[in-house]
Amino acid sequence: MALKSFVEVHPDSHFPIQNLPYGVFKPGPGSPPRPGVAIGDYVVDLSEIASAGLFDGPILKNSSDCFHEPNLNKFLALGRPAWKEARSTLQKLLSSAEPALRDNANLREKSLVPLNKVELLLPIAIGDYTDFFSSMYHAKNCGTIFRGPENPIPPNWFHLPIAYHGRASSIVISGTDIIRPRGQGHPSSNSLPYFGPSLKLDYELEMAAIVGPGNELGRPVDVNEAADHIFGLVLMNDWSARDIQAWEYVPLGPFLGKSFGTTISPWIVTLEALEPFSCDAPVQDPRPLLYLAEKKSQNYDISLEVQIKPAGAKDSSVVTRSNFKHLYWTLTQQLAHHTINGCNLRPGDLLGTGTISGPEPESYGCLLELTWNGQKPLSLNGTGRKFLEDGDEVTITGYCKGNGYNVGFGACSGKIVPSLP
Amino acid sequence: MALKSFVEVHPDSHFPIQNLPYGVFKPGPGSPPRPGVAIGDYVVDLSEIASAGLFDGPILKNSSDCFHEPNLNKFLALGRPAWKEARSTLQKLLSSAEPALRDNANLREKSLVPLNKVELLLPIAIGDYTDFFSSMYHAKNCGTIFRGPENPIPPNWFHLPIAYHGRASSIVISGTDIIRPRGQGHPSSNSLPYFGPSLKLDYELEMAAIVGPGNELGRPVDVNEAADHIFGLVLMNDWSARDIQAWEYVPLGPFLGKSFGTTISPWIVTLEALEPFSCDAPVQDPRPLLYLAEKKSQNYDISLEVQIKPAGAKDSSVVTRSNFKHLYWTLTQQLAHHTINGCNLRPGDLLGTGTISGPEPESYGCLLELTWNGQKPLSLNGTGRKFLEDGDEVTITGYCKGNGYNVGFGACSGKIVPSLP
Repeated sequence: MALKSFVEVHPDSHFPIQNLPYGVFKPGPGSPPRPGVAIGDYVVDLSEIASAGLFDGPILKNSSDCFHEPNLNKFLALGRPAWKEARSTLQKLLSSAEPALRDNANLREKSLVPLNKVELLLPIAIGDYTDFFSSMYHAKNCGTIFRGPENPIPPNWFHLPIAYHGRASSIVISGTDIIRPRGQGHPSSNSLPYFGPSLKLDYELEMAAIVGPGNELGRPVDVNEAADHIFGLVLMNDWSARDIQAWEYVPLGPFLGKSFGTTISPWIVTLEALEPFSCDAPVQDPRPLLYLAEKKSQNYDISLEVQIKPAGAKDSSVVTRSNFKHLYWTLTQQLAHHTINGCNLRPGDLLGTGTISGPEPESYGCLLELTWNGQKPLSLNGTGRKFLEDGDEVTITGYCKGNGYNVGFGACSGKIVPSLP
Repeated sequence: MALKSFVEVHPDSHFPIQNLPYGVFKPGPGSPPRPGVAIGDYVVDLSEIASAGLFDGPILKNSSDCFHEPNLNKFLALGRPAWKEARSTLQKLLSSAEPALRDNANLREKSLVPLNKVELLLPIAIGDYTDFFSSMYHAKNCGTIFRGPENPIPPNWFHLPIAYHGRASSIVISGTDIIRPRGQGHPSSNSLPYFGPSLKLDYELEMAAIVGPGNELGRPVDVNEAADHIFGLVLMNDWSARDIQAWEYVPLGPFLGKSFGTTISPWIVTLEALEPFSCDAPVQDPRPLLYLAEKKSQNYDISLEVQIKPAGAKDSSVVTRSNFKHLYWTLTQQLAHHTINGCNLRPGDLLGTGTISGPEPESYGCLLELTWNGQKPLSLNGTGRKFLEDGDEVTITGYCKGNGYNVGFGACSGKIVPSLP
């Protein structure tokens, strides 16, 4: 029989007892942040569960102070055995058959907080943020747009998961407005650069892995052990100013075209919750070098959707329908590659996948691809879009379809507000 | 008459009373880290000075708890008025004419610790590390080596200070061994990539600015106010694996070719201490866009030197003699550009200058340039060097020559140890 909670969960909810994603929240404006897990329309306050002594497994009974922290980093550092124990404790505690929380009105009152009453915060302190480039379809489309249809994908792409270091300070939580960045653009090779608000503001549909235990500087992580260093996934919008990016990125890569803001969803869905939705990753040809050749190469079947709601519009329009399973390089290959030179990862580090485009035109994960760099505007309920306009609200959602339930990520959204004068 | 301390300082010392650079140290193996300033062969324990109530100026009398922290970030966040006050308090306290510390044997014993007895640590918690590319000579040499002598400098270079996000987790303090990184290389366009220890390991002579007060996300810093966001400078060695870098960097920039380690010197020399050594920055042609056009465009006259000491050698050989004043883009332009898109900086962020090469061949700031990508080996006391070999110890030093004293940075060194098997 399917696992069921005494907390009522609508069948369409992203947060049934099979999910239990982790976040950080404030129950009220004056209260300190604390970790929680989402279930239905509630968040379970883990600091209250810890204070009640209910994390009584062998690992967490002595380490449940990690649930009195303002972020999840300390919990992440504990590693998979602690994560499994927490999941099993919480699934039992929330199940319909278990009286400990169900029949304790006082504890229920304190620890089950309506989601619509809380403020959600960044769940982790992010030391370093890395962004990969792992969709072959995205690499091919971008290459074709910028360098033409002959050899659109650079020769290194099939041998290593390409990535760049991103900006950690400007990562914001879903719901934060994004101010249109200003910067330099350069319309053509004969022109002088101009300065002003970006004219080619874009979203990028991504997901990101949250690193659990890190590795010591100089000690790479084996690709077959890399999964133990990944706590879970979030949705991510890697906002991009294409005009700023195009002018600045030679030879050192993206900088100000990206660093004005990156939005993540508030709930981290664990690899445990995603495991039933794992699927084979694409076959890699050429075969990767040994340090990237993993025994089991897996992706997850996560349906992803992007909607845009223009200012004043009643309805959103779906602009992208994609899936995590389209990624060529797996999360574990990304992590192993990241550390192969000895680079150290730390708990809470964020590894973005890069834009998740699929093979079909409707699955392209950004406006650059969907409008072919502005040449083929989209229609949003009758209004045209080459790139994002002020007032546009972009929302990414994602979920896995289970048997009678979803394991979902909630939403990752942000609204574009005008540049400074 | 020149300011003089009751602490004896050798005329060749980098740390006279005119300098007073900030660091973080442990007086003994078991003791907690705390901030200090260097003077002669001693470090002044600022936690002891604070506990003694000697920071009695209007700002620090209520904020001297920043000197009981394990890093300088809280002090950096206070801003220039607090920094000026601390400097003036410490210069007075250490001066030969002032009895408060000079004649208090107990306090002197507690607060003046011999430098050779302490462990120096990273002085700041670094949220984000950015590396610029601000030497025209370096840009020109690299462009010529990789793309040929026609148009070696990309067209954007003269319009904006190009930069990339670096890896914060692998920044280490001077004296830390550097393990030769492993990774993919790609000898020629007809070959398959190979995997192994880097064959083209290099140093890069750089300096880095330490950010003081940050800016809010979405609020750029005006170029004419940018100096107030910079606390001071350190020496930096941006170790680079040229073979890994050359294969991976298209199209998203340097990643594993750099992220295995970056060494900084332990002492942050403040802009106040450097002010007597300021000089005009090079004239910029074309004139930069308005947001980069500063009223006063200044560099500092800092002599820089790199030495290599091979394993078992008695002596080091000087391989680079350069100067900070050669940089085309100023620190303030770098910082203003970094924030123009709204990107937020935070106290303790590190802004590297990029390799500081000058016009003369002996001033080239890395082996890539000095040996012209291995084509013209250097001679180190008779042994040839194309790139760094295991056991090589690389030491960067830098100082400003005053009238009868130096304002120096001490040393930034690291030794190459072999790759993992």
